[in-house]
Amino acid sequence: VTSTQTHKERFFLELKKTESMVRDYLLADRQLERFGPGHIGELATAYIRRPAKRMRPAVLLFTCGATGGDGRVAAALPAAAAIEMTHTWTLTHDDLIDRDEKRRGQPTVHVLAQNRARQEFDYDSEASYLYGQRIAILVGDAQHAWSVALLLETPCPPVDGCVVHKIVGILEGQVVPDLIGGESLDIQYERADIEGLPETDVVRMLWLKTGVLYRFSAVAGAMLGWNTSDADDPRVRALGNFASHCGTAFQLQDDILGIVGDEKTLGKPVGSDIREGKRTTILLHAFANSLPEEKQLLRRVVGDHSASASEIAEVQRLLDRKGSLEYTARLARSYVEKALPHLEGLPSSPYRELLEAWAAFVVERTR
Amino acid sequence: VTSTQTHKERFFLELKKTESMVRDYLLADRQLERFGPGHIGELATAYIRRPAKRMRPAVLLFTCGATGGDGRVAAALPAAAAIEMTHTWTLTHDDLIDRDEKRRGQPTVHVLAQNRARQEFDYDSEASYLYGQRIAILVGDAQHAWSVALLLETPCPPVDGCVVHKIVGILEGQVVPDLIGGESLDIQYERADIEGLPETDVVRMLWLKTGVLYRFSAVAGAMLGWNTSDADDPRVRALGNFASHCGTAFQLQDDILGIVGDEKTLGKPVGSDIREGKRTTILLHAFANSLPEEKQLLRRVVGDHSASASEIAEVQRLLDRKGSLEYTARLARSYVEKALPHLEGLPSSPYRELLEAWAAFVVERTR
Repeated sequence: VTSTQTHKERFFLELKKTESMVRDYLLADRQLERFGPGHIGELATAYIRRPAKRMRPAVLLFTCGATGGDGRVAAALPAAAAIEMTHTWTLTHDDLIDRDEKRRGQPTVHVLAQNRARQEFDYDSEASYLYGQRIAILVGDAQHAWSVALLLETPCPPVDGCVVHKIVGILEGQVVPDLIGGESLDIQYERADIEGLPETDVVRMLWLKTGVLYRFSAVAGAMLGWNTSDADDPRVRALGNFASHCGTAFQLQDDILGIVGDEKTLGKPVGSDIREGKRTTILLHAFANSLPEEKQLLRRVVGDHSASASEIAEVQRLLDRKGSLEYTARLARSYVEKALPHLEGLPSSPYRELLEAWAAFVVERTR
Repeated sequence: VTSTQTHKERFFLELKKTESMVRDYLLADRQLERFGPGHIGELATAYIRRPAKRMRPAVLLFTCGATGGDGRVAAALPAAAAIEMTHTWTLTHDDLIDRDEKRRGQPTVHVLAQNRARQEFDYDSEASYLYGQRIAILVGDAQHAWSVALLLETPCPPVDGCVVHKIVGILEGQVVPDLIGGESLDIQYERADIEGLPETDVVRMLWLKTGVLYRFSAVAGAMLGWNTSDADDPRVRALGNFASHCGTAFQLQDDILGIVGDEKTLGKPVGSDIREGKRTTILLHAFANSLPEEKQLLRRVVGDHSASASEIAEVQRLLDRKGSLEYTARLARSYVEKALPHLEGLPSSPYRELLEAWAAFVVERTR
């Protein structure tokens, strides 16, 4: 127990270290120069300036260290920053797509731009709304380009140029299309009949939206650590599968927190996932196990953007009573159990322990 | 005269060849597989399936050939396709930002997605409008990633991996931020007082929106042709400057065609640049040279989305009478004159002649 406790403490310590390294890397003057005058640069770094876990760069760095390539962990920092920026541009665009107003407890990019148009440029309400939308598209595009440029900052040597080349190719040729495929399914499922939606489709959608980028974090970390351009190397694939399963578990836990979490820890209003009608395995389970009058409640409240606090609370109680939250928690744990064997080929090391601690964390976390 | 005539004919012939090579490369099954099921792939290739000049890839290939690296022109095809895709993703997002409904005579990406939502998914009018907007954001993102992936398909050998590396870094680290800076200025200038806007600012904005990508086309073509990763090589810079000036001239001519061109050749409604209040050197000249009552006409019609056909015709006549169209035509020619000396260091070759023919074309073209 003491050892596990220590692992956990060290995990949080290392996570904090990654967070501050990635943040410093991204907010360096040298980085911000690329944006020129205007507020694009300020908006492009808004989410980076807010406290966050920076889980994806941590997985990349831990995986790189776990390959035994300890000396290459420093060289992996630009790639770690790149993956955080990839995640960030998808957030900027997804927030716009979902018309979300808050991210990490503060206004989303399109809302920031909208506020500025109203306050500084004196635009009227409609013009500032449109301005916010238009600028957020451009900010996400600038962040996307930045993520690629960051990856190309990987120092060669010690890393081979063709390793970087291959990693960029995987990111832009495979990972981003998958992320976009996941987001576009999410948009379509929003209006699909929940009872007609198979659980495998929902899990696949959240794997595309989350698991794929976690898998990439580990694959890139492993390729950098072993300095190999062979993404099909069984050792690289094993680490990719590990992170892929943990990423899916992470997202399942996210869905649970989206129901039971509070505004302070989540940074977005309580029950917003219910109001948005987000398709989750929790809801699917609840529909499959509810009586007609319970289904009626779900049909009425889920997806109703103006649902009252008491209606939200009623749905939360139903999801708890039906065991739907526990069902998804179990599902998340099963993914972690599928993940762990993929670490078996790795030598023992402090970095391997960090990966194990991460696997435990993804289903234990409350924020 | 006969020789010039022949150069011109060969230019159009080679342009047509480039167009079909780039089109075939982008529409190959292998390329489309990345998008998976759903209509993202169909929308991502919509503009590619329509007739277009594909001027940027042509400049890249002609420049590559003009370096004397004739044998490397074939190896430059993925980069040529990449640059067309870079241009295409900016069109997808710009069309959405500008709420334009037509591109190359057919519906823009967000309108295509909106139509599909209404016809196939049976969404109501508001839901399908929103769906179109959301999907167009994702399609542009997918195209952006695709452009990077295409560039990485450059065969190494004959090209060095670090040359490709450097070209991707310039595109995503410098060119895209510039393009976005230009677009964001365009959005801001839309609401700026035309008379308070210096011509240098407007020219800089259109250089950012157009000249920068033409410069990159030539820089990438030259780096591939000479197989050098040194973007500061004076020979590379000279070709970049040549294309940069011609690109600005191209855009100035575009502004002229935006006033005098007809719907059939432009693919968008007559006078749409006037209705949108697009800030051009033509308008700036007209304002600077108009009497109070003429300014009143301009102020009333320019930027009025519901201006009548007769009001548009009245503004067109005023711009002609004031010599504003001729003023901008002269400005465009002056950029071409600044461009040509940058070709002087190049050996004579059929490719150099194609670049010269392109320089003549950018200010002569009527479509």
